[in-house]
Amino acid sequence: MSTIAFIGLGIMGAPMAGHLIDAGHDVVGHNRSRPAVDALVERGGRGADSTADAVRDADVVITMVPDGPDVEAVALGDDGIYSCAKPGTLHVDCSTIRPDVTRALAEAGAERGIRVVDAPVSGGEAGAKEGTLSIMVGGAEDDVAAARPYLEVVGGTVVHVGPAGAGQTVKAANQLIVAGNIQLLAEALVLLEAQGVDTAAATEVLGGGLAGSTVLQRKAAGMRAREFAPGFRIDLHHKDMGIVTAAAREAGVAIPLGAHVAQLVGALRAMGHGDLDHSALLLLVEQLSGRGERA
Amino acid sequence: MSTIAFIGLGIMGAPMAGHLIDAGHDVVGHNRSRPAVDALVERGGRGADSTADAVRDADVVITMVPDGPDVEAVALGDDGIYSCAKPGTLHVDCSTIRPDVTRALAEAGAERGIRVVDAPVSGGEAGAKEGTLSIMVGGAEDDVAAARPYLEVVGGTVVHVGPAGAGQTVKAANQLIVAGNIQLLAEALVLLEAQGVDTAAATEVLGGGLAGSTVLQRKAAGMRAREFAPGFRIDLHHKDMGIVTAAAREAGVAIPLGAHVAQLVGALRAMGHGDLDHSALLLLVEQLSGRGERA
Amino acid sequence: MSTIAFIGLGIMGAPMAGHLIDAGHDVVGHNRSRPAVDALVERGGRGADSTADAVRDADVVITMVPDGPDVEAVALGDDGIYSCAKPGTLHVDCSTIRPDVTRALAEAGAERGIRVVDAPVSGGEAGAKEGTLSIMVGGAEDDVAAARPYLEVVGGTVVHVGPAGAGQTVKAANQLIVAGNIQLLAEALVLLEAQGVDTAAATEVLGGGLAGSTVLQRKAAGMRAREFAPGFRIDLHHKDMGIVTAAAREAGVAIPLGAHVAQLVGALRAMGHGDLDHSALLLLVEQLSGRGERA
Amino acid sequence: MSTIAFIGLGIMGAPMAGHLIDAGHDVVGHNRSRPAVDALVERGGRGADSTADAVRDADVVITMVPDGPDVEAVALGDDGIYSCAKPGTLHVDCSTIRPDVTRALAEAGAERGIRVVDAPVSGGEAGAKEGTLSIMVGGAEDDVAAARPYLEVVGGTVVHVGPAGAGQTVKAANQLIVAGNIQLLAEALVLLEAQGVDTAAATEVLGGGLAGSTVLQRKAAGMRAREFAPGFRIDLHHKDMGIVTAAAREAGVAIPLGAHVAQLVGALRAMGHGDLDHSALLLLVEQLSGRGERA
Repeated sequence: MSTIAFIGLGIMGAPMAGHLIDAGHDVVGHNRSRPAVDALVERGGRGADSTADAVRDADVVITMVPDGPDVEAVALGDDGIYSCAKPGTLHVDCSTIRPDVTRALAEAGAERGIRVVDAPVSGGEAGAKEGTLSIMVGGAEDDVAAARPYLEVVGGTVVHVGPAGAGQTVKAANQLIVAGNIQLLAEALVLLEAQGVDTAAATEVLGGGLAGSTVLQRKAAGMRAREFAPGFRIDLHHKDMGIVTAAAREAGVAIPLGAHVAQLVGALRAMGHGDLDHSALLLLVEQLSGRGERA
Repeated sequence: MSTIAFIGLGIMGAPMAGHLIDAGHDVVGHNRSRPAVDALVERGGRGADSTADAVRDADVVITMVPDGPDVEAVALGDDGIYSCAKPGTLHVDCSTIRPDVTRALAEAGAERGIRVVDAPVSGGEAGAKEGTLSIMVGGAEDDVAAARPYLEVVGGTVVHVGPAGAGQTVKAANQLIVAGNIQLLAEALVLLEAQGVDTAAATEVLGGGLAGSTVLQRKAAGMRAREFAPGFRIDLHHKDMGIVTAAAREAGVAIPLGAHVAQLVGALRAMGHGDLDHSALLLLVEQLSGRGERA
Repeated sequence: MSTIAFIGLGIMGAPMAGHLIDAGHDVVGHNRSRPAVDALVERGGRGADSTADAVRDADVVITMVPDGPDVEAVALGDDGIYSCAKPGTLHVDCSTIRPDVTRALAEAGAERGIRVVDAPVSGGEAGAKEGTLSIMVGGAEDDVAAARPYLEVVGGTVVHVGPAGAGQTVKAANQLIVAGNIQLLAEALVLLEAQGVDTAAATEVLGGGLAGSTVLQRKAAGMRAREFAPGFRIDLHHKDMGIVTAAAREAGVAIPLGAHVAQLVGALRAMGHGDLDHSALLLLVEQLSGRGERA
Repeated sequence: MSTIAFIGLGIMGAPMAGHLIDAGHDVVGHNRSRPAVDALVERGGRGADSTADAVRDADVVITMVPDGPDVEAVALGDDGIYSCAKPGTLHVDCSTIRPDVTRALAEAGAERGIRVVDAPVSGGEAGAKEGTLSIMVGGAEDDVAAARPYLEVVGGTVVHVGPAGAGQTVKAANQLIVAGNIQLLAEALVLLEAQGVDTAAATEVLGGGLAGSTVLQRKAAGMRAREFAPGFRIDLHHKDMGIVTAAAREAGVAIPLGAHVAQLVGALRAMGHGDLDHSALLLLVEQLSGRGERA
């Protein structure tokens, strides 16, 4: 039984903290808005009014906040994790942020005796509630080993992919592939529809060959029906594509398709569809083809 | 038992014709180079010195030739199928060509009482030998029904996807998605390698989530090992991307990523890698990232 | 004084033929629709009911028709130029078509003793009326020399740029650069407007440095005012971008930006703006940025 | 006669400071490396060991440093401009940085009574030596008016383009257009060469029409001769394309070609050509076309 400070009790964080409580841990939660803390207390956890209060006696600190600057604020601030936590504390950051920011945090943590692990997740709200998230973990071997028991409580797949930042880089690669696969499927479907093809039958054949993908299995039917309830919102994928392009630029790696689809995701968002599922890239292809209504 | 004229006894055509012989049909084969015809005769078929001789008494004519102009030559030429075959003959074109060319052939055939079905295949040489090809079929309901028994001899999956040309459009969509998925995976892998990530572990996590795809399952290991033996050659995918871009242009459909990856496939070919598997797009990404040796 | 057959008396052809009449030549015109022929007769030329009649006694045949298939029809048809014109006749094709089609025509002409020169023009309707067209000429040295006196009647600049097809390749390069420069200016202007910059002042500075261009001089004001009266229509630039991409593909040359802007021109056309000036690419950038009226 | 603190005496800053000395101003220079300060003293200026010493008695502070973080360091640091300069001091930043960073600096300056003007320049080392730079100025009307006399000493064209950050946005637009125009010209030239066209003659025709540009005038000959001595280095244009893409992303503006050419500039740099002139994008097009040697 460990004392776990959980910072960020949003759509993802709340159910994750809940699973840790169910597993018998002493979870002390903090969140910018108080109601989320109260909910955690009702769930059987303890509440804290500040990050400092939450982490002071923690063995493990888990953060699940929107973006890099948020993690930097709670970790590096005057009353932040690295100032207030005990030396030797394990900081597991489950947020999706830039790999270079993660590496800088790991260095800053090391200076204060804090062991930092990056552990971004995929699987969305459903995966968080079911405890079936896929978790890509970066960090030192023993730190990741120390984090694993807690991560296995909230995730179905926990894989150590490399040193600090590696988890974030894999998450970035994941978002690059997913956005691209959706866009390619959108281009294919609009082409098929424009040519009077039976897209249900076509999707069946495509799925059976080298063109098959999880995106095709999970998204094609909704795209054909123009049902774009999230799922994963364009606003979030736009944020993540910013991480993808920044990570590639920092690494000096060319991502011609990745940079291209980042523009398309940004365009769909600018056109007012940030709240739709990322499969709504279909609307952009329709628009650019003089078809459809909504975009 | 039907008399089947089979035009084009190449890497794909020869094993397909063989399966039809095994199924008890009277197969009369013709090919530009004689040895392929002799091989068919040894296999138990009959040889013909010309398309005219092959089709004159056929119930069904199957064509499997490199590109649209080849089909037009054997179908529309003075001694071609539509001049020499009996009215009512079924022409099943398994070649991969432009949908608009297929539609024009269907019209030309109709004028001469020839029933035309487009039935491009995917699955490659292995699929042809094993008789497990996926076949996307376009044409009139009854013509496709008439072609199905023969197609099921050579294919594992036979799906009617729409009117004349629909099969070719689905094949084009397939090639668009496949080329794009390979390029996205290549960008992801080079980014992961550049950041010191364990790509074996990363591929495992990526495959388990929304980024999963048949390309990832079948190609990632080879790409990580830089093994690019075909498989499906860049030269052929370059030809097919020409079909994809032409089909989209004719339909007035925007395929921003498709047109982009068509350029990358063409570049890899121009760089001298036309004989490698299409997964060699990784070499291009490496080159553009100042990494690797070969490209 | 020469007898000149002029095939294609449209917006460009009519004024060009008129200048040749003014220069004292015997111009025999043919056009698919009769009124254009009558107009030429009123202008002082002679009319012909067919290409055959027009070219039979001509020293020079000039063609100015919409696209490659049109040139092939009038040149290679049973009653076409190469069947009906005298051996030694000079065929000057001012149409904008694919370089490979031009080269094939030159070979076909040579077999019949017809000397073929490609001479696509730029400068539009205004340039045609004023006789100030820029003409890019491809062909054999002496054939181009023979064509020059006639071309200098209709053009202000006549430059021999290489062998058969070279004129068309330069025209393609011209259209590639123009479309790209317009798109880049559109992206720049929308970015400047979005940031509250004084675009009049900005255009002045941009024009004075390395970003200066004829596109900026002639198009920026209209783009800022959202005035898109042609000028050069998107429909025509879309046709020309098809030539650009085909020419690059045939040559094995990578044109990443060219292929990209071809998609954008095609999209703007698909969105219903084919009749606007090509500077209307600004509307597409606005649309993709969630700004302006719905393009 | 004013006291001017000049921070950053590099290739651009040194000659700019020199012109201000020649104009009779009291110039106090600081630079990270001492020799540049000594050179300024020899030139007739005064030297300072720190930013603090340089700005303490200044009426105007001009900064010309590599990137945004450098400006932030000298402006916002504990011993920086905004801590050490007199209230009412005018800070003219001639560096090329992100518009949003400039706006943040303007706000931080205002809090301390410092008037901030952004004034990025174009024209390169030659323009700096000759005092003929083009300067794009952003800021409040009266602050820009106060900065103008100093800017006119170092620039040939000084234009007020809008509020704080506007100068940087125009500079970004300039770099977007320039990189794109070079890439388009590179694609055109490689296509022309591949088709055996006389590129000297072709360049002449292209320059006379709508495809004409300053890039064509100044860069085409060097590109044809494969002479890529800077000029403006790929490394610097890569840094600037990072500003362009960040500015467009912040503004929610789609720059499909801009983002695409940013990838190509980054690729050329990754391939080891960061020290060449930006016109070396031709080498990348050659490489992607299987032509040439150097890339």
